[in-house]
Amino acid sequence: MNSIFSDRISDVPKSFIREILKVAVDEEVISFAGGLPNRDLFPVEALKMATEIVFEKTGPAALQYSNSEGSVELRKFISDRYNKKFSLDIPIENILITSGSQQGLDLLGKTFLNEGDDIIIEEPGYLGAIQAFSVYKSRFNPVKVHDDGMDIIALKNVFPGRSPKLIYTVPNFQNPSGISYSEENRNHVADVLKNKKIILIEDDPYGDLRYTGQPKSSFRQILPDKTIMLGSFSKTVVPGFRLGWIVAPNEIYEKLLIAKQASDLHTNQFAQCVMAEYLAMGNFDEHIALIKEVYNKQREAMVNSIKKHLPENISFTHPEGGMFLWITLPDNISSMKLFDIAIKNKVAFVPGNPFYIGKTETNTLRLNFSNVDEATIEVGIKRLGLAIKELVILG
Amino acid sequence: MNSIFSDRISDVPKSFIREILKVAVDEEVISFAGGLPNRDLFPVEALKMATEIVFEKTGPAALQYSNSEGSVELRKFISDRYNKKFSLDIPIENILITSGSQQGLDLLGKTFLNEGDDIIIEEPGYLGAIQAFSVYKSRFNPVKVHDDGMDIIALKNVFPGRSPKLIYTVPNFQNPSGISYSEENRNHVADVLKNKKIILIEDDPYGDLRYTGQPKSSFRQILPDKTIMLGSFSKTVVPGFRLGWIVAPNEIYEKLLIAKQASDLHTNQFAQCVMAEYLAMGNFDEHIALIKEVYNKQREAMVNSIKKHLPENISFTHPEGGMFLWITLPDNISSMKLFDIAIKNKVAFVPGNPFYIGKTETNTLRLNFSNVDEATIEVGIKRLGLAIKELVILG
Repeated sequence: MNSIFSDRISDVPKSFIREILKVAVDEEVISFAGGLPNRDLFPVEALKMATEIVFEKTGPAALQYSNSEGSVELRKFISDRYNKKFSLDIPIENILITSGSQQGLDLLGKTFLNEGDDIIIEEPGYLGAIQAFSVYKSRFNPVKVHDDGMDIIALKNVFPGRSPKLIYTVPNFQNPSGISYSEENRNHVADVLKNKKIILIEDDPYGDLRYTGQPKSSFRQILPDKTIMLGSFSKTVVPGFRLGWIVAPNEIYEKLLIAKQASDLHTNQFAQCVMAEYLAMGNFDEHIALIKEVYNKQREAMVNSIKKHLPENISFTHPEGGMFLWITLPDNISSMKLFDIAIKNKVAFVPGNPFYIGKTETNTLRLNFSNVDEATIEVGIKRLGLAIKELVILG
Repeated sequence: MNSIFSDRISDVPKSFIREILKVAVDEEVISFAGGLPNRDLFPVEALKMATEIVFEKTGPAALQYSNSEGSVELRKFISDRYNKKFSLDIPIENILITSGSQQGLDLLGKTFLNEGDDIIIEEPGYLGAIQAFSVYKSRFNPVKVHDDGMDIIALKNVFPGRSPKLIYTVPNFQNPSGISYSEENRNHVADVLKNKKIILIEDDPYGDLRYTGQPKSSFRQILPDKTIMLGSFSKTVVPGFRLGWIVAPNEIYEKLLIAKQASDLHTNQFAQCVMAEYLAMGNFDEHIALIKEVYNKQREAMVNSIKKHLPENISFTHPEGGMFLWITLPDNISSMKLFDIAIKNKVAFVPGNPFYIGKTETNTLRLNFSNVDEATIEVGIKRLGLAIKELVILG
């Protein structure tokens, strides 16, 4: 290439959502586009108190350079929680604190992917992961997800021809579709993978936000030797602190740590100390319960509004948790065209395209319900219904 | 390769310094090894106040997801400061906030370097940069630095055979050597580069910490079209916030922004807000003056102790600023062997090796003077002198 830039950066899609959010800044636009948690639920007072304690108790040490692995207290909390939730015994030496889960994805790409290496992703799939892995010029093998999880036949079909190093999954309340893998589906996925040389990434930012149904197993329980877990405090506490983590076995951890050092030395030490103090206060579960109560109502408001205001020939997912649901329009309707009309009608969403590899036209779209109150959701979905009607008439 | 890991990660040296710091945790060891600013000088009270203001004034918005470019207030401050210091007119649209300067290096590697691309670095050179660029499998072309800057003949000699994309420089109080480029040397470097297709990275974390001599021009003034600047609040305020920045022209900025999005979405928003509030208080220059006063004394204490306690056949740099000085032992003395004896004598430093490409034995070493008080510096250098004597007798 004649460009001064690296080949890799030329291949990375610019964040479509961030571009869309720029269109949606108009205050009159009701936005279902972002992936923002509801800031009215942030534990501001508790974090303020935690901050005061950190200044009092830790002082300058909270402001100094620190180790690349991350805060021991924070990792201890995460370890204990895995134990409580899944009876998993995760030593803190296998937990690496990252600058948000997005950095976890980047570090995994850095550590595993050579140019052209195959990776399985969900279709539709999380676009932050697509972005992160694109940087390392891997070859994507998208496998469809349905209401109950991964398409097992499609998953099996990847293997005769290719030897993917990684499979990236969001088994709980997936971004973008809101679907979850059933217990049965998880076991089927594990059956397909168990004798193969592949690592499964279980990205679980929404796992704590379950509004209905039974909690499911972690892949770490089903495929312990092959599973890397990603976690985040962005959806349960605050995203602005950029605090996530990776759980990986020793040999992989060692490499991830080198990648972490080379990437940013270590994660913000002050934020780690404040988060650890906040969690030590012991109200985390209570706080999650509050978030769940509110998001659940918003989810129900959105589902009810869809039933009321959108035409019957669309279909939609009914997530058991998380922050998103997914709409499939009739085959011939472009969600990109709908987007333009919707914006004029003062409602925003994310068209499906960026969640696929190489598709410029889709009839799908993602709606976020965590960041809009119930009354506004109804108004917004009504506007969306009008936009769809308008588009159908325009033809 | 048969490994599950990427080729790139196998090539990256683990941070030597971090490994050494593990040896130096013994409280009786006087450590000149780290690159830590003196935490007793952190503006803890002012940051505490700034934090309270952020909770009061900005509230939940300081805890939410934010834009990848970084805080407008922070970028405005940085822009104004370039104007004040260098009469440079840097629009905030050319300033990208990063998770420390280390991330700046990673983003530059990501954005520019294909496997095998040539890059010029200083010899000895900053090991964080060597680590970051190693990830992208570039080919290093080390050019010696002397007391007054880069070896111009060696610099010229790179070009007949190779076409480096990047040249990485720390022109002020270099890490590890403490040397600075003279004004004349900067102009000579610029003369060599001016008609070539190359980008100069000016990494300047220590520029504000000048204890003696005259401030020098930025390469951005001498080679405006070719210079990317890296800056950091780690040495002037606190490192634990992980706040640095890149200044790059539009076309490059656009690519760096994509790399930033893919790497961690955005920098810790809360830390950015607190830093912006802290800087708005207007005591930044006063605070820097205080740091300079203390570090200058420590620098002098170190130089005087070296003259007093180290043998005459060693040479050392006498930095005009920054945090480090560099010792060259007689030819036949290994600083790695010295390290082992020094640790037994309860004093630590960083042997020169990791600051070179592919050297396992050197007769050089780096000493940090920012993080040890004057009295302790004398004790530590005395121990180092004894270790050298012991090694000479043994050797």
